[in-house]
Order: sequence, then structure tokens, then C-alpha cells
Amino acid sequence: MDAKLQQLLDQLKNLDYSNMYNNDFLHTWDKTTDELKAMYLVADALRNLRERNISTRIFQSGLAVSNFRDNSTRTRFSFASGSNLLGLQLQDLDESKSQVAHGETVRETATMISFMADVIGIRDDKYIREGDAYMKEVSESVAQSYADGILDHRPTLVSLQSDSDHPTQSSADILYLINELGGVENLKGKKVAVTWAYSPSYGKPLSCPQSLITLLPRFGMDVTLAHPEGYDLMPELVEKAGNYAAETGATFKQTHSMEEAFEGADIVVPKSWASFASMERRTKLYAEGDKAGIDALEKEQLAENANHMDWHCTTELMNKTAHGMDTIYMHPLPADIEGVSCEHGEVENAVFDAHRDGLYKEASYKPYAVAAMIFLQKVKDPVAKLAELEEAGTKRWNF
Amino acid sequence: MDAKLQQLLDQLKNLDYSNMYNNDFLHTWDKTTDELKAMYLVADALRNLRERNISTRIFQSGLAVSNFRDNSTRTRFSFASGSNLLGLQLQDLDESKSQVAHGETVRETATMISFMADVIGIRDDKYIREGDAYMKEVSESVAQSYADGILDHRPTLVSLQSDSDHPTQSSADILYLINELGGVENLKGKKVAVTWAYSPSYGKPLSCPQSLITLLPRFGMDVTLAHPEGYDLMPELVEKAGNYAAETGATFKQTHSMEEAFEGADIVVPKSWASFASMERRTKLYAEGDKAGIDALEKEQLAENANHMDWHCTTELMNKTAHGMDTIYMHPLPADIEGVSCEHGEVENAVFDAHRDGLYKEASYKPYAVAAMIFLQKVKDPVAKLAELEEAGTKRWNF
Amino acid sequence: MDAKLQQLLDQLKNLDYSNMYNNDFLHTWDKTTDELKAMYLVADALRNLRERNISTRIFQSGLAVSNFRDNSTRTRFSFASGSNLLGLQLQDLDESKSQVAHGETVRETATMISFMADVIGIRDDKYIREGDAYMKEVSESVAQSYADGILDHRPTLVSLQSDSDHPTQSSADILYLINELGGVENLKGKKVAVTWAYSPSYGKPLSCPQSLITLLPRFGMDVTLAHPEGYDLMPELVEKAGNYAAETGATFKQTHSMEEAFEGADIVVPKSWASFASMERRTKLYAEGDKAGIDALEKEQLAENANHMDWHCTTELMNKTAHGMDTIYMHPLPADIEGVSCEHGEVENAVFDAHRDGLYKEASYKPYAVAAMIFLQKVKDPVAKLAELEEAGTKRWNF
Repeated sequence: MDAKLQQLLDQLKNLDYSNMYNNDFLHTWDKTTDELKAMYLVADALRNLRERNISTRIFQSGLAVSNFRDNSTRTRFSFASGSNLLGLQLQDLDESKSQVAHGETVRETATMISFMADVIGIRDDKYIREGDAYMKEVSESVAQSYADGILDHRPTLVSLQSDSDHPTQSSADILYLINELGGVENLKGKKVAVTWAYSPSYGKPLSCPQSLITLLPRFGMDVTLAHPEGYDLMPELVEKAGNYAAETGATFKQTHSMEEAFEGADIVVPKSWASFASMERRTKLYAEGDKAGIDALEKEQLAENANHMDWHCTTELMNKTAHGMDTIYMHPLPADIEGVSCEHGEVENAVFDAHRDGLYKEASYKPYAVAAMIFLQKVKDPVAKLAELEEAGTKRWNF
Repeated sequence: MDAKLQQLLDQLKNLDYSNMYNNDFLHTWDKTTDELKAMYLVADALRNLRERNISTRIFQSGLAVSNFRDNSTRTRFSFASGSNLLGLQLQDLDESKSQVAHGETVRETATMISFMADVIGIRDDKYIREGDAYMKEVSESVAQSYADGILDHRPTLVSLQSDSDHPTQSSADILYLINELGGVENLKGKKVAVTWAYSPSYGKPLSCPQSLITLLPRFGMDVTLAHPEGYDLMPELVEKAGNYAAETGATFKQTHSMEEAFEGADIVVPKSWASFASMERRTKLYAEGDKAGIDALEKEQLAENANHMDWHCTTELMNKTAHGMDTIYMHPLPADIEGVSCEHGEVENAVFDAHRDGLYKEASYKPYAVAAMIFLQKVKDPVAKLAELEEAGTKRWNF
Repeated sequence: MDAKLQQLLDQLKNLDYSNMYNNDFLHTWDKTTDELKAMYLVADALRNLRERNISTRIFQSGLAVSNFRDNSTRTRFSFASGSNLLGLQLQDLDESKSQVAHGETVRETATMISFMADVIGIRDDKYIREGDAYMKEVSESVAQSYADGILDHRPTLVSLQSDSDHPTQSSADILYLINELGGVENLKGKKVAVTWAYSPSYGKPLSCPQSLITLLPRFGMDVTLAHPEGYDLMPELVEKAGNYAAETGATFKQTHSMEEAFEGADIVVPKSWASFASMERRTKLYAEGDKAGIDALEKEQLAENANHMDWHCTTELMNKTAHGMDTIYMHPLPADIEGVSCEHGEVENAVFDAHRDGLYKEASYKPYAVAAMIFLQKVKDPVAKLAELEEAGTKRWNF
């Protein structure tokens, strides 16, 4: 067996993750740290096999159903890629082409698309509390239909971003860090700045920063969350971040100064988001169908954003970090790059450009994170199955 | 061999269905009763194999082309699922993205999409006479292109609903009944009420009730068709229903009383539809591009519908059936459920909710009906092939 | 081994095409004549295998990403078919559903969709110079990301039509001629009329005629290009056509008379296009966002078109060719057929109808051209691999 694969499987053997089989992946905080580690190891193992041109196809047929309630390129292709890697065919539930009736229950639609679906990926991040609620309802619906003997199996869910969490993104982020830093154990003690940054657009999801502050402290990383006053995240998730830090002996700090967060940081993640309060207002206005109110809110929030144009990632700020321009700069992309996609934005082009390769590598882990989540949901004995796939050595690409 | 599979194959051996190979499936009335029975047996056999995790992949590559001229969730996913189960990749002919020229012949488009298509699924149910005419033209076109040496094979067609018939739906319906009642022979003598029901929307297809009244009498079921005056179905199909009943010694009755139809029924199928006469008028108005005329017609028909709000499936009505609330209630879904999707509609929530599991099971047969239709079109010796697939025992899901 | 396949492989062995492995296919003029011949042989070999029901699947998983910036049926289905034939799953980069940010670099999007993409097919033919520039940028981007260690492989590109060339179309055209005339060596000395024809619509791409005049002379064909004054093609490609003719001893002539071009022709290809000058103006107007200017240009050009209604392919004109109605008439379809899709157009129905079978056969080669391009990009030793596939004899369709 390949030495690298052997090493990954050896680590995997020592973890307890049996509860992931036949289970959903909706939030990282639903999972134990062992389970998360197992997912990262499986992602690296699948990558190892694919890069050595070994097929990891575990399905002869079957559908991976996607339901994107918001536009997406990166996550859409990651889900398509990760499910294809395992042998599933993507089938999009495009609600605009569907006859999903007004008033039809979630339970009904969820069942109707699931007769031959092995996995369902959902992205629903636009409205506060709604994404999570929708995914929970879909999950319970298919579990119910399985229990009732309607489905011959329970399709498992993968969250492709909700209003609270973005687990495939934060998994790609941490996989990048694990591989850059030479192992999950090396995350401990690293200082990370998760900071707000100015964007000329409004309404970017809270789930990106939330997914990081609730995940990184679990691996002993010292996180500082920075944003202008008023740009709060969901309070229960900020609390969760603090609790996780306490458990691992890491620190979790909050500040209203971007500079303070950058001071001595090993990793910086400056990115725009809308404030929780405004997102809650927006959710209410949408529910009320108050189009004028929404427009007024957007105008007001863009004006508020404009008060914080100095929150952008500059070379000067990078110089305050632990390693200057060598400090890891992360972003889920696409970024608002000054002089490229906007005049004023999240990051100076000089900083972005110097970190381009790293950013693209960060993104490259997302299809493997998706594949690992599905693999762990669908394979009873992942160590044995990965070894079996290597042993079989079927070429993915018969070149 | 699995006992259940053995039993299905034993029955299959005694039927004559050799004419289905390389042939279309457009209407149930194009098929002999033996052919229909064969399709139900193959559907159950494919389900048996899939539920035992045995791959039924008979294609290494090949396309299943879908052409949905109307929105669809259930049938879209059924076609995607059924074709994927056999190894085909779905390719949608999305006419909005296509360069299908105004005036381009059906023959040309049909040929252009067929070079590597093994099967073509079409849904075209909106305009009277047009769906059937279009499918016939596509079928003749690909047959012609095959005869002319342009295509190296003839892609077969599956109707995913036309203006006259909805064979994948009625096949799912009858498969559900066969499995609930313990065999196709047990359908004989069962009393079925196929009735109109009130809907706050207008224009639901005639093909659903038509597909049932022309199918069930062939298996000896006693069908009563009920609707308010004016809500007639296509006369030649009503005549066909009567003829089929005469052949099997079953009864086929018509009435303008929902109550009368429910009286003593073993199975009820209350569902809204537009009247044949109004659908014909609508088809003409569309052809003439008379938008105002269409709007006026819709208004008029909704007003007419509103005169029949008492045509809804209530607990009280269910109590008049043979088995009260245990009587089988069927619907192709989504239904207009009172208090859920509308104020007044086809069915009371109490009735719908009590029959939810059955309704979802009914729907679960549709992907297998699609797969069985394709299987019989594409496999020369289905008994031998099904046995061969079980013998090979390739895992669909290598868990 | 099958005699026909043996013959194709024998020819393939004598060609030098090693540079096609891991390389793009953007224009025929990027390729040597040996490379083009190799592609035609591989297309015929793949067709031979498929028609004998032998699987040519060389991928267990992997994506073929398509990016259609213009509507398409024929080319869309050809790309879907050709990639499916090799085992790849189509994933469309539908820019309307994507979060491709304004200002996001091509490099970023290209990388994001490529982590598990084996091939990328692009159609971008609307604006002069832009299609080629875009494809070049995508190609360089993925090469860069591969060099930087971001991608573990370099996805190769296939042009599905740019502003300058339409290589999958011209490959289908020439494959049809090779098979009709009994071998690539029989193209030499055949007289081809590539002529403009009247269309009631405006803006048809230049890349169709350009792809023919730059390709056919390379195989010794005598090409006459005919169009009304003002309907020039890109000057550098007309020059290229002349140079290729000079190299092979063929003739390349230009005229403003359709009749003159048809005189004694063995093959005629009458088709409408917009003039290079007007397309350049349109490109500029789009860049300036000058909607009114574009509308004015279209009006002006339609009026100019109307001055040349006599440029249409009639029975009378066909009688001036070498073989009368037996002369090969080609068109990439859909054509503007008089009395079918328009009153006045490119071709009389009598001519079109007499050549329908040939036209459809011409189109049938496109999926194989696509598959051959991908095969040569992805297979190191095509002769050995094709022999290996035949030897394995896996049934594509296990009927």
C-alpha cells in the first residue's frame, strides 16, 4: 500500500466515527471531533487515490440530488465532482422547472425525489433560521418515509450551506490548513483572525465566518473575531465558539479592530458579511412581501457598509501579522478585489495576487470534503473499503 | 435464486410480450394485456433486485433524452431514476436553451438528438391532440432515420404523459394495487371510483382519469366514472373503457354523482380535470394566439368549477365506500388538500393524511415502471437477463 | 480483429500525432495534417466499435464541463454524447445559475470548475475576437493552475465554436465526405463551392464558412468562396485558405457570383453569414452597451441581406454543378428552407429534401468528432487502446 495512504488509514483506525454511517452532515457542531478528523482523513485518502488514478467508485448507479436555492458555482461543481467521484449521477431539483405546488409539503417533495436518491445536497442560506429549518424538515421527512416502508433506504443529507453553517467550505478551509501545516495536530496554538471586511455589495451570508469560529477552536486554534460595531454574528454561535475554545484550552476573543485581530496572526480570513440584525429584518420583510422595505434596508445597509471602507486587507495590515506576506490569507471566493472587481473592497490586489495559489488550493479541497462526507455516510467500514479500492486498483482514467 | 424473483420470472415466462423489444411505449391501449402484465412483473423484478442491492445496469454508456414541454417533478425524477438504474445518462432537451429553429421539422430535431440516444422520454400534455401527434412524429422520424441508415439503432420512446394517456402514472397506480392486493389476479371484481373533484385551479390534464378508465377494466375491475355535467373526457376513450369492460366481463358505469360512485367502492381516485370541450377551446385559442380569449376562458371555467365545490373527498364520503377509511384512496400528487394547500379543494386533510403512506407508496412505483418499459424495449430475453443480473450479483452500492 | 477497424488502425500507425496527447483542440489550423487525419481515423474507429456494440468507456468517473455562451442543440448533444461515450459525466457551467462574480477573473472560474474536470468544451462565437481570446485564457489558466500544483491534471479544451473556427462542425463535414467518397485520399481534386446564401435573419456566424475554407484545401480540395460584395470573411483566414491551397497544389478562388462557384462543383455548401465588417461593428456596439446602435445595425444589415435574395440554392443552380442533384449539398443545420421555415431563404425545399439523408448523416459524425478529439487528448497510445477495447469486447448495451 502507498505509504501516504497507509498513514491516513492508520490514523483513521484510531478514531470513533461509527455514528456517521447512514447519518446526515448538516453542521460541524453536530459531529464529534473524532468524526471531523475522520472526515478529513477520508478526504485526503480519496484525494490520494484519485491522484494516483485509482477509481473510488462505490456506486454502479444512484442519484445525488442537489437543491440549490441560491446561485452557486464552486459548491455546485464540488457537489457534482464529489458525487461523480463515487459513481453517483447528479440530478438537480430545479424548482423553477418543477411542479412543486404552492402548499405542497416539504415531506412530499422530499419523498418524491428520493426513491433512487442516495444523497441530497441542499444550499439554502438566504434567510435566517430558514435554511436550517428546511434541511431538518427534509431530513426528518426522508427518515419518516424510510420508517414507513416507502423508501427502501434513507438518503442522507449534506448541507451545502445554510444560514448558520457552511460545513463543506469550512472543511475545505481546514483541510487546506492541515495539509499546509503538516497535520491536524499542528493547528493547535495557531492564531487566526476571522474579520469582517468592506464590500460594495450587501447581504453576504453569515455562515462563512460562523462556520470558522465554531470549528477552528475545536482544534486548539486561537481565534479572534473582529467586526465593526453592529455587524454581530448569531449570538448562540459566538457563544458556541467560546465554549469550544474553553474545552481545548484555546482562546476566543472579540474586538472591533481589524488591526488588533491581525496583530501576530498566523492566518487571516477577512471577508464581508451582513449583520445578523439586518438579516433578521430582511427575513421578516421577505416574509411580509415588503419589497419597498427590502430596498430601503439594502440602501441603509450599503450606507452603513460605506462607513467601514477602512476594513480591507492591505499589505500594511499583512505586515502586522506573524509572518508578513507569508501569513496564510484565506477566502471562500469570489473576493471583492480592489482594482479588479471593485474600486474599494475586501482586499488589495497585491495581497490577493500574492496568495492566489493558496486560495485556489484551499478551494481544491471542497470536492474531496463533499466526497468524504458521502463516503462516511455510505460505507460501513471505511478503512477496509479504502484499502479494498487501492487493492483493486481499477484505473479511473484508462489512459 | 431469491424466491420472490423466481416467482416473478416464472409468471413472466408464461406471457407473450416479444413485440415490446425495440418498440415504443406511448399508450397502454397500444399493448396487449400480456405485455402490460410483463411490464408490471419486470418492474417488480427490478425493484426486487435493487432492494437487494444488486446492480441492474445494462448500459455502459448511452443517453436517455428527456423532453419536458411542461413542468414536472415526480415524472422528471422518475425518468432520471429509471434510466440511471439501467446505466443511461439523462440529457435534457431544454428547448429554451436549444437552437431549435422556428420551422425546423420535428424529424430534424428528433434525429439530431438521437445519434447516441437509447431512449427518448416526452411529456407533452397541454394541448388536445398535440401531445400524441408530436410523439407519433418523433417516433416515425427516428424510425425513418434508422431505416435510412442515419441512426445505427432506433431510440425507443416512452410517453411521460400526453393529452390522452399518462402510462407511467397509471402503471405506478396499478403496480401499487397489485402489490397491495397481493397479485394482478386480485384486481378482478374490485370496484373503483374514478371521480372529478373540485380544484381552485384550472386546466388539469384529462390524461390522468383517461389513463385509469382505459386500463383498470382490462384487469376486470368495475369502474365508475363520475363528474359534473360538462366535465366530459375524450369520447373515444370513454368508449374504449366500455369496450374493455365488456371484454373482461367487468362493469363500466358513468354518473354525475360523486356519492353514487363512492358507494361500496374498494378504491377511490377523486381528482380534478378540465373538461374536454374547454380544453379543445383552449387549444384553438392558443393556436390563434388569442391571449384575451384564453384569459376569458380560464375565468369562465374557474367560475364553473366553483359551482362544484361539493365534489371533494370527505370522511363522510369515505364512509360510504366498502371499507370506510380503509378503502384505498389514490392520487398522482400533488393534491389540492383543504386546509393545507387551499381552502376548498379535492380532498379533506383528514382523508389525505390518513392515506399519506399509501399515496407515497403509489408514487414509489413510477421509477420502476419507467425502468421496466425501457428494459423491455432494450432487452431481447428479459427472463434470462434478469436471472443473469442476479447471478452476477454486482453490488449497486458497494457499502 | 474486425477488418474495418484493422484498416483504420493500420493507417493510424503511420501518422505522427503524439503532440495531441494532453493538448487542446481549438482550431484545425493549430494541428498538422497528420494530426487531423489521426482524429478522423479515431472518430471512425470509435464509430466502428460503437456500431458493433463494444464499449469505449475509458473513464470510470470524471466530468466533461460544457460552457455554452450561446444556444445550441446539435453541438450540445454532440458534446454530451461524445463525452458520455468515453465515460465522462456532463456538467454544464450555466452562467445564469452560477455565482460567477462580475470582475471575477477567467483564471479563477476556470480553476474552480476544473478540480475533477477532464475536458472543457466551450462555445463562444458571438463576438469577433472574443471567443478565441476567452478560450485561450481558459486554456492558459488551467495550464497555470496545473503548473502551480493546484490541479492534479490539466483539463484539455475542445472548441465547440468560436468566432473564427468551428472545428467539430468542419470535422463532421469532412468525416462525411471521407466516408461518402471512400477515403481521405479521394478528397483531392474535388471542387467545392463555399457560398453565401440569403437568410431572413441576421448575424449568423462567420466561423462555419471559415472552418471550411481553411480545412478543405489542406486535403487538396479546390475551393471557390463566393459571396456578395461586402460579405467578407476575416481576411487572415482567407489568406490562410490560399496558403493551404498553394501548399497542396489545390486552387482557392474567390468570386461574387454564386453561379460561378456552383459551375462544375462536386460539393456545394451554401449558407448565410454576417459580414466581418458588420460583426466588428456589432462587437464594438455591444462593448459600448449601445442597444439603439445594435438595433439600427441589425435593421441596416437585414436590408442589405434583402438585396441578395437571389443567392439561394435552387434546382436550377444545382443543375450547373458537376452531378446535378447528385452533387453533395452540405449544411450544418438548421437551414432556412423556402416554404418550410421561411418564404425566401438559403435553399429551395426541393433541393433540401433531396439531400436530407446526406445532411443528417453529415451531422451524425459530430459526436464522434468530439469523442475522437477527447480520446486523442486523453490516451497515450490510441492504437493500442483501441485494440485493447476491441479485445475486451465489453458490451456497451447488454441487450
